[in-house]
Amino acid sequence: MDFDHSPKVKDLCDRLNAFMEEHIYPNQELHNQQLQEMGHGIEHWENWGGVPIIEELKPKAREAGLWNLFLPESRRGGGLTNLEYAPLCEIMGRAPWSAEVFNCSAPDTGNMETLERFGTEAQKKEWMEPLLAGEIRSCFSMTEPDVASSDARNISLTITREGDEYVINGRKWWTSGSGDSRCKLFIVMGKTDPEAEPYRQQSMILVPRDTPGLTIKRMIPVFGFSDAPHGHGEILYDNVRVPAENILLGEGRGFEIAQGRLGPGRIHHCMRMIGQAEVALEKMCKRALERRPFGKLLSDQGVTRERIAESRIMIDQARLLTLKAADRMDKVGNKEARKDIGMIKVVAPRMAAQVIDWAIQVHGAAGISSDFGLSYAYARARAIRLADGPDEVHQNQIARLELKPYTNERV
Amino acid sequence: MDFDHSPKVKDLCDRLNAFMEEHIYPNQELHNQQLQEMGHGIEHWENWGGVPIIEELKPKAREAGLWNLFLPESRRGGGLTNLEYAPLCEIMGRAPWSAEVFNCSAPDTGNMETLERFGTEAQKKEWMEPLLAGEIRSCFSMTEPDVASSDARNISLTITREGDEYVINGRKWWTSGSGDSRCKLFIVMGKTDPEAEPYRQQSMILVPRDTPGLTIKRMIPVFGFSDAPHGHGEILYDNVRVPAENILLGEGRGFEIAQGRLGPGRIHHCMRMIGQAEVALEKMCKRALERRPFGKLLSDQGVTRERIAESRIMIDQARLLTLKAADRMDKVGNKEARKDIGMIKVVAPRMAAQVIDWAIQVHGAAGISSDFGLSYAYARARAIRLADGPDEVHQNQIARLELKPYTNERV
Amino acid sequence: MDFDHSPKVKDLCDRLNAFMEEHIYPNQELHNQQLQEMGHGIEHWENWGGVPIIEELKPKAREAGLWNLFLPESRRGGGLTNLEYAPLCEIMGRAPWSAEVFNCSAPDTGNMETLERFGTEAQKKEWMEPLLAGEIRSCFSMTEPDVASSDARNISLTITREGDEYVINGRKWWTSGSGDSRCKLFIVMGKTDPEAEPYRQQSMILVPRDTPGLTIKRMIPVFGFSDAPHGHGEILYDNVRVPAENILLGEGRGFEIAQGRLGPGRIHHCMRMIGQAEVALEKMCKRALERRPFGKLLSDQGVTRERIAESRIMIDQARLLTLKAADRMDKVGNKEARKDIGMIKVVAPRMAAQVIDWAIQVHGAAGISSDFGLSYAYARARAIRLADGPDEVHQNQIARLELKPYTNERV
Amino acid sequence: MDFDHSPKVKDLCDRLNAFMEEHIYPNQELHNQQLQEMGHGIEHWENWGGVPIIEELKPKAREAGLWNLFLPESRRGGGLTNLEYAPLCEIMGRAPWSAEVFNCSAPDTGNMETLERFGTEAQKKEWMEPLLAGEIRSCFSMTEPDVASSDARNISLTITREGDEYVINGRKWWTSGSGDSRCKLFIVMGKTDPEAEPYRQQSMILVPRDTPGLTIKRMIPVFGFSDAPHGHGEILYDNVRVPAENILLGEGRGFEIAQGRLGPGRIHHCMRMIGQAEVALEKMCKRALERRPFGKLLSDQGVTRERIAESRIMIDQARLLTLKAADRMDKVGNKEARKDIGMIKVVAPRMAAQVIDWAIQVHGAAGISSDFGLSYAYARARAIRLADGPDEVHQNQIARLELKPYTNERV
Repeated sequence: MDFDHSPKVKDLCDRLNAFMEEHIYPNQELHNQQLQEMGHGIEHWENWGGVPIIEELKPKAREAGLWNLFLPESRRGGGLTNLEYAPLCEIMGRAPWSAEVFNCSAPDTGNMETLERFGTEAQKKEWMEPLLAGEIRSCFSMTEPDVASSDARNISLTITREGDEYVINGRKWWTSGSGDSRCKLFIVMGKTDPEAEPYRQQSMILVPRDTPGLTIKRMIPVFGFSDAPHGHGEILYDNVRVPAENILLGEGRGFEIAQGRLGPGRIHHCMRMIGQAEVALEKMCKRALERRPFGKLLSDQGVTRERIAESRIMIDQARLLTLKAADRMDKVGNKEARKDIGMIKVVAPRMAAQVIDWAIQVHGAAGISSDFGLSYAYARARAIRLADGPDEVHQNQIARLELKPYTNERV
Repeated sequence: MDFDHSPKVKDLCDRLNAFMEEHIYPNQELHNQQLQEMGHGIEHWENWGGVPIIEELKPKAREAGLWNLFLPESRRGGGLTNLEYAPLCEIMGRAPWSAEVFNCSAPDTGNMETLERFGTEAQKKEWMEPLLAGEIRSCFSMTEPDVASSDARNISLTITREGDEYVINGRKWWTSGSGDSRCKLFIVMGKTDPEAEPYRQQSMILVPRDTPGLTIKRMIPVFGFSDAPHGHGEILYDNVRVPAENILLGEGRGFEIAQGRLGPGRIHHCMRMIGQAEVALEKMCKRALERRPFGKLLSDQGVTRERIAESRIMIDQARLLTLKAADRMDKVGNKEARKDIGMIKVVAPRMAAQVIDWAIQVHGAAGISSDFGLSYAYARARAIRLADGPDEVHQNQIARLELKPYTNERV
Repeated sequence: MDFDHSPKVKDLCDRLNAFMEEHIYPNQELHNQQLQEMGHGIEHWENWGGVPIIEELKPKAREAGLWNLFLPESRRGGGLTNLEYAPLCEIMGRAPWSAEVFNCSAPDTGNMETLERFGTEAQKKEWMEPLLAGEIRSCFSMTEPDVASSDARNISLTITREGDEYVINGRKWWTSGSGDSRCKLFIVMGKTDPEAEPYRQQSMILVPRDTPGLTIKRMIPVFGFSDAPHGHGEILYDNVRVPAENILLGEGRGFEIAQGRLGPGRIHHCMRMIGQAEVALEKMCKRALERRPFGKLLSDQGVTRERIAESRIMIDQARLLTLKAADRMDKVGNKEARKDIGMIKVVAPRMAAQVIDWAIQVHGAAGISSDFGLSYAYARARAIRLADGPDEVHQNQIARLELKPYTNERV
Repeated sequence: MDFDHSPKVKDLCDRLNAFMEEHIYPNQELHNQQLQEMGHGIEHWENWGGVPIIEELKPKAREAGLWNLFLPESRRGGGLTNLEYAPLCEIMGRAPWSAEVFNCSAPDTGNMETLERFGTEAQKKEWMEPLLAGEIRSCFSMTEPDVASSDARNISLTITREGDEYVINGRKWWTSGSGDSRCKLFIVMGKTDPEAEPYRQQSMILVPRDTPGLTIKRMIPVFGFSDAPHGHGEILYDNVRVPAENILLGEGRGFEIAQGRLGPGRIHHCMRMIGQAEVALEKMCKRALERRPFGKLLSDQGVTRERIAESRIMIDQARLLTLKAADRMDKVGNKEARKDIGMIKVVAPRMAAQVIDWAIQVHGAAGISSDFGLSYAYARARAIRLADGPDEVHQNQIARLELKPYTNERV
């Protein structure tokens, strides 16, 4: 047992931190300005695309050897285990837009991992290469407005074989990333066989953005934020036809693929949340040392101190739990590690939302404005608590696994 | 002791509810659409003004005897005590935009109350009459970006006498309502005498919107919401000159006026929060009865039931506490009732934020979109937790009053 | 709507408070000493009986017109409604042993109310008269060790008719009050007809303490406290035979009787909890004004102040909710008021446990000793959270009633 | 970074677990019975001493190589680092009385560590040898009833040099372990020089139990529990005289010694709390699978599942944080690791109290009886939250260290 990262990981962290200091943090303001110019408001989503400063920094990141760091067990990725990649996610999470600079953005990472594990050579060639090169972006179209889709069995979009094609019909929303005009690939989950056993009904299929019948109806705001240029789209699939070879892995394998991509994605999300929480705690400390209502610095007030202490405790605990889950995934695989993965899904976004909320409180009304980035950070954390199923679904699963040794129930 | 409202109040509630059913709820969609057409995004604030459906409904409300219901102890108002007006605020709070239909919107109500209690006849004639008639709107400019203004002694805007005029210099933000082009009156709080004793330094002064030197720099979003057409302005006062008679009550009386207006305003805010929480609980129940993840209605799941029960408990407790505070204000005055008023300030918005957050959780990702109004309701409740000073300021004051009987400290 | 008690109730409160000041508070130490001498430890329970100081004070209470104040709608009681009696319970709750001085102790009050409502004249003559006179005590034997008896349908003790007698067999525990040798009457709940419909299977029957076959196996501690001389007994009923006329109201009426007694008892319990919480808050304030770790009074520290403020808020809210439930019971009856009664059952003991726990924290290690009565108060509050079913059962019921208007489910 | 224990530690854990299975768990009932026979009630403390079953098992533990496992960096101990010893503490913590079987009980471990680090050879010979042999026990007399002794500077007992002796005067309480007649050594903290700088005023001195003037006034209960045969004594030191050489390390070194012993002791306490929490969670699961109120197993109810999941999450997080603190202590020393040590002091007992409280709730009234050990476990966890200073003191210290990088304050 050892709580220190290896020299290799420490070195990567140092290099990534140096890049952030030199290229990311000083450009935050510029990045926001460029977004504004692009048309940040949700009604302008059709103008969304690459942000100039990001495009400018990508080659620098590549040059610095900080490109495609994810993707364990593949020669295409950074050659890092989940445990080794995790602290890098935390660092990138400190400025969420930076992930794209390193070609480590969700959902592209998950989509590339899916293609790497389950794609054919042709699929890899067509989609994975431009994705790895950062030339296009992609999205994952799973959640539906009309059913409780945290239970994947409820999914109702149909994927029907007709000759050499599949025909897709249904409605999705929260298809994150679809707002970006560079997003060329939609990985769509739907039902190929409603009569099969529950976990063999779903399939995943690759749909190019420009396929006729695929309509992006609108972008959905998150607490009033547009998340430009990424966006969360509502997508109508109306008799969308794609070649039969676009199916991933084969009919009925959708659930299996979904399970496979969940683990690493959650590590990434959780570590990013931890990065966000660290930033919020820093802001909380700094603000508390500046403001002096009623003749006493906020940082000298007991309630503020309690929250700073609790924030540190919650962040450190969440980080350790997440790193341990990554270690378990590396050692025993996603399936055996599913209780660990479920636990961090509950813990990390909830922790981040709480720490950010306390930071908001220390900032007073400034906290809920957009001047300090805290209200946006809160909205993101609150959203992540719901992404991949709400806390309750995971708590339920954790409890079942915990109860299992005392019962004969098949879990 | 009696927990039922008087027949007079019950009758008013019935009539107000009937109006809501007939004119407000069915027009929510239309109201939102009209807002959208006006330019809901924060960058379009210069287009903001009256919403057609509101203007259309105002005469109907007037006709129905549901106009200017606030303003206790004045022939100009509804002739209701705080306790009697409170339940009407809850009802209007169910659809926040409806308050304007009844000419009962903040901050106009507080401003009218201020003018009624402390204004000269000339001031009343110029400003109060068009406000009572619903022809113009007004705002209250107190919070400053550069100091912890929950402690009013920190306020730094200067109001300096020069001959027959006062010259105003400083910067304010969160001047709510200033986004609306119909907002013609700014009541500004600032320092006339920095050498006076702490609570005699501040004054309030009336500033017409078009006075040279008054510049609205921007509207500040709450989370990502613009609060159009109301808006929360950042205002620059650069050598703004107004006639000396625009001062309210006299130099050094600002703190006293501020105290006077706080009590009723808090009752109104808290009751509106309770109305919002009731709506959120209704939505939570309805959604829970519709969604069936993992083969079981959400409404049959223990965690949902626990939250529904806790919501009902929290709402009912907050309502009783608020009504009791109103009763105390009516019986012993704002000053004697300040512990009661402090308590509801802490309780009601926090309760609403929690109930709304649970409602969001039951709605899943739909909860953080704008489709159910819940994320906006959350943002408002979170903002109210900070308005008039954050919870901590009030908790501190409550504790001081609680400790007082056991000590000789002057409280 | 009016939040002040009537002059009649205020006068009763004043008189009761005066009695507490003169006779109860000054004798707390003596009361504890006499208990100690009697043998406070759980292994000495067979010595338990009347405490001398209580017996001494009873005639004084009677003389002061403070005797049998409970029992609404009966010429035998104090002629008070539930709403009127409630504040008296709070005052007595400040020193729990005082209730017996006024012949207002649980479970005698509930048992007397049961006899008054459902007993025959003979039953009243035999049991109610000595109870009203404070000559004997009684207990209520319902909870069973082997089943989840928060669901009364699970009760398994059998009451079987044989000729002119009923034969009782089963095991009960938490038969509170059975430790006192003056406890002469056991009201026992059990099944007369396991084949009847679920809520008609149970009956209640009167069993004199000395009936052969009734064995008190032990007293059960609450945390480490014995609750002497009251005690919580485990009782074995082994072929206990009583005359057929000892049945209450008739076979199959047990559930109905149980429902009837629950309402008022909960008001009493909750108000006593509020009294306990007030005492804890007083102690918290006083201690905070005395202790000065790290150079600063606890009462000047933000965290302490936050807890004092939250305690005041929680206590006031719980009191209002309880008084409102009492008002509803008086106006619409126990059944219609069952949501209100469920809510206070959840709120009041939980609130008291929290306030007492904070008081403990302010006292440091002294708080968990027995020197300040706080650890005992905590244990009692924690126990009340479980008595009459744990919080979860009530939350579930509240939620069902809340959901009802939106569904067709029979609730 | 690696989250698995070394083979050496895994082997020790296996052997310790095997011993627990064979000798400890099967004897829990017997142990309790023997305690009862000894006179478990607090008024019988003068009879307290060794429990037969413990004495019987000690040689077996010694034989199994499971003796004196603590004491890092010393040939007298188990040769284990803090990180290596930690998981053994968790295992022993599952049955708190077992620690003595392995001669690993508090406060003897801390006292032995103190003697090892700071004692003279003569002191070691006289006291450490019989302690290491498990022949005597010892206590640590620091907390005082009359001052806030979480701030060690407040300590008021005096240790005054007179010729070749020190004279000790003062009152202590919560001198844990003093109830046991085998406790022969009292390590007493007091002031030798009230004029010295704040952290040089205190000294520690060795006082044999039988020294004239040392009177044990009483044992103090914890939530009604006696903690026999250990006990928490109130001790009067009335002109107690000991030879000058009994001083530890020298005058004015008391604070320094206290700091040195805190670190490892907290690791031990926290790991034992984690062991207790694991046991409570096991009991919670088992009970939940047995009880079926309202027709549905508790283990199938959402609220129970939520608590089981949260318990697992909280336990795992607390364990990781504690192990990390141990790792830091081993690598950078107690002083550098003080933020880590402060954090686990806050987290672990609070977590245990919460998990145990949930376990109580699942057990219903049985949970607060003594039949399942849960109420006693709760009382212990609640006590540990106050031992070595309440949570608030540690939160304050953590916050100061967290704020330090942003300020110039000397921390």
